[in-house]
Amino acid sequence: MRGDGRQPRDLRPFAITLHPNKYAEGSVLIEMGDTRVLCTATIEEKVPPFLKGQGKGWINAEYSMLPRATQVRNPRESVKGKLGGRTMEIQRLIGRALRSVVNLEALGERTIMLDCDVLQADGGTRTTSITGSFIALALAVHKLAEAGKFAKYPITDYLASVSVGMLNGQALLDLNYDEDSKAKVDMNVVMTGQGAFVELQGTGEDSPFARSELDSMLELAESGIERLIAWQRETLGEAGSRIGTVLA
Amino acid sequence: MRGDGRQPRDLRPFAITLHPNKYAEGSVLIEMGDTRVLCTATIEEKVPPFLKGQGKGWINAEYSMLPRATQVRNPRESVKGKLGGRTMEIQRLIGRALRSVVNLEALGERTIMLDCDVLQADGGTRTTSITGSFIALALAVHKLAEAGKFAKYPITDYLASVSVGMLNGQALLDLNYDEDSKAKVDMNVVMTGQGAFVELQGTGEDSPFARSELDSMLELAESGIERLIAWQRETLGEAGSRIGTVLA
Amino acid sequence: MRGDGRQPRDLRPFAITLHPNKYAEGSVLIEMGDTRVLCTATIEEKVPPFLKGQGKGWINAEYSMLPRATQVRNPRESVKGKLGGRTMEIQRLIGRALRSVVNLEALGERTIMLDCDVLQADGGTRTTSITGSFIALALAVHKLAEAGKFAKYPITDYLASVSVGMLNGQALLDLNYDEDSKAKVDMNVVMTGQGAFVELQGTGEDSPFARSELDSMLELAESGIERLIAWQRETLGEAGSRIGTVLA
Amino acid sequence: MRGDGRQPRDLRPFAITLHPNKYAEGSVLIEMGDTRVLCTATIEEKVPPFLKGQGKGWINAEYSMLPRATQVRNPRESVKGKLGGRTMEIQRLIGRALRSVVNLEALGERTIMLDCDVLQADGGTRTTSITGSFIALALAVHKLAEAGKFAKYPITDYLASVSVGMLNGQALLDLNYDEDSKAKVDMNVVMTGQGAFVELQGTGEDSPFARSELDSMLELAESGIERLIAWQRETLGEAGSRIGTVLA
Amino acid sequence: MRGDGRQPRDLRPFAITLHPNKYAEGSVLIEMGDTRVLCTATIEEKVPPFLKGQGKGWINAEYSMLPRATQVRNPRESVKGKLGGRTMEIQRLIGRALRSVVNLEALGERTIMLDCDVLQADGGTRTTSITGSFIALALAVHKLAEAGKFAKYPITDYLASVSVGMLNGQALLDLNYDEDSKAKVDMNVVMTGQGAFVELQGTGEDSPFARSELDSMLELAESGIERLIAWQRETLGEAGSRIGTVLA
Amino acid sequence: MRGDGRQPRDLRPFAITLHPNKYAEGSVLIEMGDTRVLCTATIEEKVPPFLKGQGKGWINAEYSMLPRATQVRNPRESVKGKLGGRTMEIQRLIGRALRSVVNLEALGERTIMLDCDVLQADGGTRTTSITGSFIALALAVHKLAEAGKFAKYPITDYLASVSVGMLNGQALLDLNYDEDSKAKVDMNVVMTGQGAFVELQGTGEDSPFARSELDSMLELAESGIERLIAWQRETLGEAGSRIGTVLA
Repeated sequence: MRGDGRQPRDLRPFAITLHPNKYAEGSVLIEMGDTRVLCTATIEEKVPPFLKGQGKGWINAEYSMLPRATQVRNPRESVKGKLGGRTMEIQRLIGRALRSVVNLEALGERTIMLDCDVLQADGGTRTTSITGSFIALALAVHKLAEAGKFAKYPITDYLASVSVGMLNGQALLDLNYDEDSKAKVDMNVVMTGQGAFVELQGTGEDSPFARSELDSMLELAESGIERLIAWQRETLGEAGSRIGTVLA
Repeated sequence: MRGDGRQPRDLRPFAITLHPNKYAEGSVLIEMGDTRVLCTATIEEKVPPFLKGQGKGWINAEYSMLPRATQVRNPRESVKGKLGGRTMEIQRLIGRALRSVVNLEALGERTIMLDCDVLQADGGTRTTSITGSFIALALAVHKLAEAGKFAKYPITDYLASVSVGMLNGQALLDLNYDEDSKAKVDMNVVMTGQGAFVELQGTGEDSPFARSELDSMLELAESGIERLIAWQRETLGEAGSRIGTVLA
Repeated sequence: MRGDGRQPRDLRPFAITLHPNKYAEGSVLIEMGDTRVLCTATIEEKVPPFLKGQGKGWINAEYSMLPRATQVRNPRESVKGKLGGRTMEIQRLIGRALRSVVNLEALGERTIMLDCDVLQADGGTRTTSITGSFIALALAVHKLAEAGKFAKYPITDYLASVSVGMLNGQALLDLNYDEDSKAKVDMNVVMTGQGAFVELQGTGEDSPFARSELDSMLELAESGIERLIAWQRETLGEAGSRIGTVLA
Repeated sequence: MRGDGRQPRDLRPFAITLHPNKYAEGSVLIEMGDTRVLCTATIEEKVPPFLKGQGKGWINAEYSMLPRATQVRNPRESVKGKLGGRTMEIQRLIGRALRSVVNLEALGERTIMLDCDVLQADGGTRTTSITGSFIALALAVHKLAEAGKFAKYPITDYLASVSVGMLNGQALLDLNYDEDSKAKVDMNVVMTGQGAFVELQGTGEDSPFARSELDSMLELAESGIERLIAWQRETLGEAGSRIGTVLA
Repeated sequence: MRGDGRQPRDLRPFAITLHPNKYAEGSVLIEMGDTRVLCTATIEEKVPPFLKGQGKGWINAEYSMLPRATQVRNPRESVKGKLGGRTMEIQRLIGRALRSVVNLEALGERTIMLDCDVLQADGGTRTTSITGSFIALALAVHKLAEAGKFAKYPITDYLASVSVGMLNGQALLDLNYDEDSKAKVDMNVVMTGQGAFVELQGTGEDSPFARSELDSMLELAESGIERLIAWQRETLGEAGSRIGTVLA
Repeated sequence: MRGDGRQPRDLRPFAITLHPNKYAEGSVLIEMGDTRVLCTATIEEKVPPFLKGQGKGWINAEYSMLPRATQVRNPRESVKGKLGGRTMEIQRLIGRALRSVVNLEALGERTIMLDCDVLQADGGTRTTSITGSFIALALAVHKLAEAGKFAKYPITDYLASVSVGMLNGQALLDLNYDEDSKAKVDMNVVMTGQGAFVELQGTGEDSPFARSELDSMLELAESGIERLIAWQRETLGEAGSRIGTVLA
């Protein structure tokens, strides 16, 4: 049994608050255990310079932690005057992951910007950000679809993410901060509703891992993501009904 | 009557959630109408270089808005690589205001850092930040006092802030964003529980104002701050009982 | 009596040198006691992006202190690589104050940039910058008017600024550095030739102040600004004769 | 057959020049096809602040591309004034990977800094940097060992890296730039001489991948890394003879 | 005859105002024609890290132009957030030049910082800065000597600088801006009171120059610097009497 | 005799590798003794903003040292977030020098960017960069000429550079690092194939130098540059045959 009473295959208790922000085109407050991320989707009717005139859209993401999201206060990157490597890595990952389930041609020449702001961090902030920002994205796209903006529905599949790791020779699902800091291996997995891999990032800095350990972790991740996507589906309801489908 | 149905002397509906953050030594989610600010107080057992060895403490503040706190998304200052003038102005104001009711000698060689993060902005974010961060500060100081850290209680008085303005020849209390953007004069007032002024910042960029208008606005501000301080007192309860008093 | 022999209601000796710079469209060296600020006005036949195509002009200001303007040398902001909060606060104030007496439509699509460089600082550098840069602005506008650029004269009123404070229970006008550093309350006031308030910034960080103290300070400020504006009027002579008037 | 005549399981022609730099404690010019990276190892007899006094050492890495390492010149990060996200991601990866085969206690309180400068880029610059900088690191550590600095040999295993990908439904080893830009899946694998995984980073931005595809790619990667490590072993000769062993 | 009526060998009219700044340990306002530079010397009783504990002092210089020192306003480097190449080049030159006539051992462990702020620029700002800051330096050193700080007088010789150039096949001394912008060759020369070269920087970007032209320019420079040093000697009077001498 | 066995008038052994980079329009690896610089020329079919629409081209240069090009590792400027003064000085020099032998009108509206990256530094990196980047430039221009882009050949003359200095009262040619760090005078000279001066930068920070010393150094520099240009001519062969000539 784990420190917080879970079995190895258990996710933490999760919760979604829809529309916590009155301005954003899509917004979600997602909680995985004590990890809490506010995800907003902003629609901008323009694309980055490198895409201009190509009839394609773009999905971008930014990630940030409030200074006291963590046990020890960490200084703001705005005060330091630059983004750290960790932040860049994570926001590039979120953007890439979301784009993998969006048909950018179908989206049209517009950008959807996902902002993931971590209000409280207890492990898994990047995977929770992906799972939550997918919902915010889906809400914003649904709104555009309601306004008749698409010939073809641009979201091609569901998408969620979870972390897995090896701790004391045991594969564990959805690590909290305490487990994460002790784990020998730490892996983040992003998968689609179809069960395909979008991103796989495993690191064994403190201890390289064997193929069999990889297999155990992947199996746990698949099972966890399946549950997360079921939950996304239920949460979105009607707003998610056309994901992966074509209009007519 | 005002756009949202208030009378000129009315504050917006307000609400406080205590302890929204499990790590911070003091934390508060404050809402004034649709303006929502998360305030956390962090205790650091050290002081800035200019105070070292003087036996005095320090109170500092940082202020930031989430990118989609506003109707139109505004770019992160961490991405721009520097703090804007407005941010610096506001966080200097918050720090100054809070220090005015703290006996820094009594606090001892420690710093309390107040982080004010605006989750949603609908006017009055700086005044709401001051009113909220005073509570977060009081909670953190109370915790230190409970641990027997003080010979003398370091908070000398209550402190709150509100905005007032002139719109269509009428002085109004606690402007929302819509009123604020139309007002001819915009004034932020910070006062103590004793009814003394700590900060007064009035600007009539679009239209200079007469002494009589100043008087009307100040009268409204005094009345509004009185109500806010009553509410702080009630919210803090026991945790605020020694504010302004000496231990023994 | 004050340290430098003045009465509480006395301004320091003041002096203006017109046209100290051969390139600027308007320039002034202003001295208030030992505070010395070089103000230049530059006319640019373009406006910032947010005003393009609106038929309106803009007034902007930048403020800086030479490194050895002060008793102890302070490092250049160009070397530190960013503007400090104090600088931003002051230059935003100067710009806002000057815009309050300019009809931006009448100015037409052009920007006037005021540069206030403090050669020597002995208290009151921001208020002196406002008083001086108003003259530089008036000179530049006069030059444009002479060239027949305006249907309507764009400067609607005179504008000057002064500091007041409370020291040993006494309200004092126009504080020098020594008084400023000891004062319990420090207030900067900007007013028009009509006697209306444009900006009011009072701070009682070390000691909150009562309404009666505010009233005494405001009374001193009004009287000081009246004298400064009389002096501006005399200095500008013909070049100031159309301020507040319409061409024909 | 592939564009450059290789079979799917083929590595590109590779070459190592030892000691291309007369100052560095270890240096290597590594070539994988037309990808060319200069790796230098610098020994510094100090550790980063977070490690001071712990009796442990540190391995750090920096990565950079010369502006014309690529087909189209890319601007210098020194000119842009900040490191891009890609650079940070890569240099964090290199450092993490190398640390996984170093016993930091055995290394003692010193830092070895690996600089990987890409002189010419034709795909696989990050994996080539890892493979090459391991050799530079081994040379530097060997030098320290020769000088009797270690009780226990600090390098615990060999380490190499290679990229794999899916192109036209086929798993390919060691992609060149042309293949990389067309591949549906791109995966970087870092493994030890023992055949354990250190890092696994797969991304299917343009097309999620199935578990069976992952398996094919991993199998190719294992085989490629085995060959690279054999080559490292041969290149290092005597200088690599104590890797993974204990002194006495 | 030149545009401003001078002969090729003529310097522009020059003037020095001593002690324009009441705080600096040495200060000078120097004018060469319409070029006007404020030079202040600040004594700091510490040295840069690389000199600590060596019993030697340091001379440093910073150079800046006010934004409207020039015909067209140039943006502040503090606003751009970094020093330009021209500024760095010039301030490195000023520091190097001054250090060439200072015995750093005799100076003792202190730094003298020279700030050269160009109030108005009409050609030759860097050479004028050198000539002027030498005087500011001499004043500051004299003050230290009066206080008995030196066993040996640390300034070993006088130092001045002037520009020369080739225009229409004619060598000209002390170019103003108009001449400078048309000149085919532009050379800055720094020399000592003994007639030795300290710096020589000639550039013929628009037209390479022959050895004979170099000789003509150097001859003019020598003659101009001789006059400038005579003027420095006269200006400093008693304060310059020990330059190049030993105390006892 | 010198430390490395050379006579005062001797250059170090030199070598050129043509086309070390497969992407650049011109590239060269130049070695002067142990100083090794990779120079690439990139053709961009656009010009900087200040030249737009004038029918002229531009030559630009950037210079950088790899961190371990030197005995002690120096931190990357990309990590520090800004270019140092030395780097800016050098790249401005290289650009200016190359432009002096290019007819920018004949070049047409395109920019050639020279990147000089120092792989190993042993004195004379800036002069070696100039000598090497001239060849890279010539190769790129030759390529454009082959493609029939010019009516008039844009390179008007050969160009090379060398350092000279005074050490122990003796003028020396082409100083290595050891000599450079001990030399009393350090001078960099850039000359054309016609024997005219393009740049002359001499500094006697540690000891001012006499006119006669200047003459000896210039004589050595002229002789060294003559040999370097002969070598450039030979290396370029056919590719350099139209330098200084007109097409028809």
